[in-house]
Amino acid sequence: MPVHDRDPILLTPGPLTTSLATRCAMLRDHGSWDAGFNAITARVRAALLAVVNGAGSHVCVPMQGSGTFAVEAVLGTLVPPAGHLLVLVNGAYGTRMARAARLMGLAVSVLECAEDRAVDVAALAARLAAEPQITHVGAIHCETSTGILNPLDEIAAVVERAGRALFVDAMSSFGALPIDARRIRFDALVAASGKCVEGPPGMGFAIVRGDVLAASEGRSRSLSLDLHDQWQYMERTGQWRFTPPTHVVAALDAALDQYAAQGGQAARLARYRANCDALLVAMAALGLTPLLDAAIQAPIIVTFHAPRDPAYTFARLYEAVRARGFILYPGKLTRIETFRVGCIGAIGEAEIVQAVHAVGDALAQMGVQDRRPAQT
Amino acid sequence: MPVHDRDPILLTPGPLTTSLATRCAMLRDHGSWDAGFNAITARVRAALLAVVNGAGSHVCVPMQGSGTFAVEAVLGTLVPPAGHLLVLVNGAYGTRMARAARLMGLAVSVLECAEDRAVDVAALAARLAAEPQITHVGAIHCETSTGILNPLDEIAAVVERAGRALFVDAMSSFGALPIDARRIRFDALVAASGKCVEGPPGMGFAIVRGDVLAASEGRSRSLSLDLHDQWQYMERTGQWRFTPPTHVVAALDAALDQYAAQGGQAARLARYRANCDALLVAMAALGLTPLLDAAIQAPIIVTFHAPRDPAYTFARLYEAVRARGFILYPGKLTRIETFRVGCIGAIGEAEIVQAVHAVGDALAQMGVQDRRPAQT
Ligand SMILES: Cc1ncc(COP(=O)(O)O)c(C=O)c1O
Ligand SMILES: Cc1ncc(COP(=O)(O)O)c(C=O)c1O
Repeated sequence: MPVHDRDPILLTPGPLTTSLATRCAMLRDHGSWDAGFNAITARVRAALLAVVNGAGSHVCVPMQGSGTFAVEAVLGTLVPPAGHLLVLVNGAYGTRMARAARLMGLAVSVLECAEDRAVDVAALAARLAAEPQITHVGAIHCETSTGILNPLDEIAAVVERAGRALFVDAMSSFGALPIDARRIRFDALVAASGKCVEGPPGMGFAIVRGDVLAASEGRSRSLSLDLHDQWQYMERTGQWRFTPPTHVVAALDAALDQYAAQGGQAARLARYRANCDALLVAMAALGLTPLLDAAIQAPIIVTFHAPRDPAYTFARLYEAVRARGFILYPGKLTRIETFRVGCIGAIGEAEIVQAVHAVGDALAQMGVQDRRPAQT
Repeated sequence: MPVHDRDPILLTPGPLTTSLATRCAMLRDHGSWDAGFNAITARVRAALLAVVNGAGSHVCVPMQGSGTFAVEAVLGTLVPPAGHLLVLVNGAYGTRMARAARLMGLAVSVLECAEDRAVDVAALAARLAAEPQITHVGAIHCETSTGILNPLDEIAAVVERAGRALFVDAMSSFGALPIDARRIRFDALVAASGKCVEGPPGMGFAIVRGDVLAASEGRSRSLSLDLHDQWQYMERTGQWRFTPPTHVVAALDAALDQYAAQGGQAARLARYRANCDALLVAMAALGLTPLLDAAIQAPIIVTFHAPRDPAYTFARLYEAVRARGFILYPGKLTRIETFRVGCIGAIGEAEIVQAVHAVGDALAQMGVQDRRPAQT
């Protein structure tokens, strides 16, 4: 352990840097049958629902596990046997949703878009018109594999007009980007504890239309991922069906307290946008180029082209920046070499600026001079 | 918050009371792509495997979520389409395993035993002889719904002699009761972070024969619960497939350090046995009667008959004992009224004795005089 025993800043899209107050909430042991813990669960559910103005129309159902578990729970519980899911794919998380749906035996189609472009809403409308068998549409709000912001409002409007149901993977946008259940129609939306609400990872959740969930009894072929059963048990008892990650839930409760105290979604978005702007400006000054057009860049995570210089490797950059106290994230594109820097977590412009200084020092040390995008 | 802001002692079978050192490990944020966190994951996997002497024959695959998720992952990944599972049921967790298997479409039979008796090994042998279609047997080691210790060694011997494969739900016994992969044969064994290894809840794991797991590729119809995919990804990258509960894993690592330092399984069993003995003696002095014969009582959790006195309700006892700093657990039997007291967690005889004093004071305050078992 180094003399300066200090946690690095995580510039990753979850797990991310959490506040000390959030982590301190994990110093308590809670009994999962206790009224005090039931109150925490109820508070967390209500606070998450309030983020999207879902009270009245929707319910929040927490699910143990990572975010993918909650996505799969939505698919397995809400799509009826005769259903047909169209997934809008412009990155790894869209691909993953389609894969989970296919594995469980659902009928699945894909609308494939380029990984550096937002989902094509006109193509979606045409597809829905041409393929009446499609009953459900799955969309990724912020496609974290690049940082693209997909046009959720337009997607929702097209899906609603076509009389189909919408599932939204809002894993990396929930709590930061505006989503209003009173303005857009969705059957289910999924996110997780360890993203923009800045809790620790370990719990996903779905925000589901109450009537749709009520009609889904007995459909899931997975016991663990049965969202209806989880919901009914929780409504009846105030408790979780199976052992909850008590420390994670308590920390999420603390994180949501801070979220409200700091000004909720608008304040979180403003902070992340300032982080993202500071990042783009400072990295440009180092000669590094973002992958995406500014118009489709979500203020969540930024993908940068790897520099062309042969002295560059991501592994070396990672280590050199790590030694300076910051954790970067690898790229997730198949053809273009990239790396990613997250803007989210309990950090502000000061940390972003420090991180870019560290990147600059690391590149200089590595002798990376030609920083134009690596050729593909 | 009371003036004496102190966590109650959890006398529950997970979540349980963890040590302060274990909880303090959650004060750090870890990046899930970082070499430091990969080392934690590797250490945890090796330490869990070592508990059952599984190195060489078995591998340890962690799984996000509660223990039930890991049970379901074993069933869905390891039982081939032509398989047939016989579940040995003498309580709620056996019933749950059978339910999970049926839901996913497996062929399932049940060997039902009384809930206050250990599984009948002779009946198992007869059943396996009579029903050649059975390929796999699922057993619960300690059936936590009562605290029964099922005869794992005899079960394993009968299953092996009959040429069938064995799955063991060792959720509440792993780390405390002896299980030796070199002495008994099992294809898979499941437990979780928040039980006798005294970590926080939030991670399950399976210990699986390497050759059996290797042969299971592409079988799971659940993406999240695909144990083969999880294993392969971890072997290849050192990382988790989907976001790990980083704080929980780090705390489990700390808990496993303490486990080894305290003397491993033998020492853990000795402490729990002393806790259990102290509990039985002190509760008997209060006039309370355990459900089980001593011969089948695991030193994990003890079920007591509810007292006959009309002044008794579990809700009142729970509250009165809670006010004194201890959390009891409700019974889980359908016909007999009971309550449960756990012997596990980072507690010793001192805490058990304090807890029984609290129970005595609570019963006196409630005016519960006739403490003979409630009639059924
Ligand atoms: C958009 C999106 N969907 C799904 C996931 C998967 O979540 P998890 O890794 O928690 O399973 C992520 C993770 O970052 C994500 O960003
Ligand atoms: C024997 C046994 N099996 C399964 C479980 C289920 O574990 P979880 O509640 O973590 O899903 C438990 C929980 O106590 C258990 O004791």
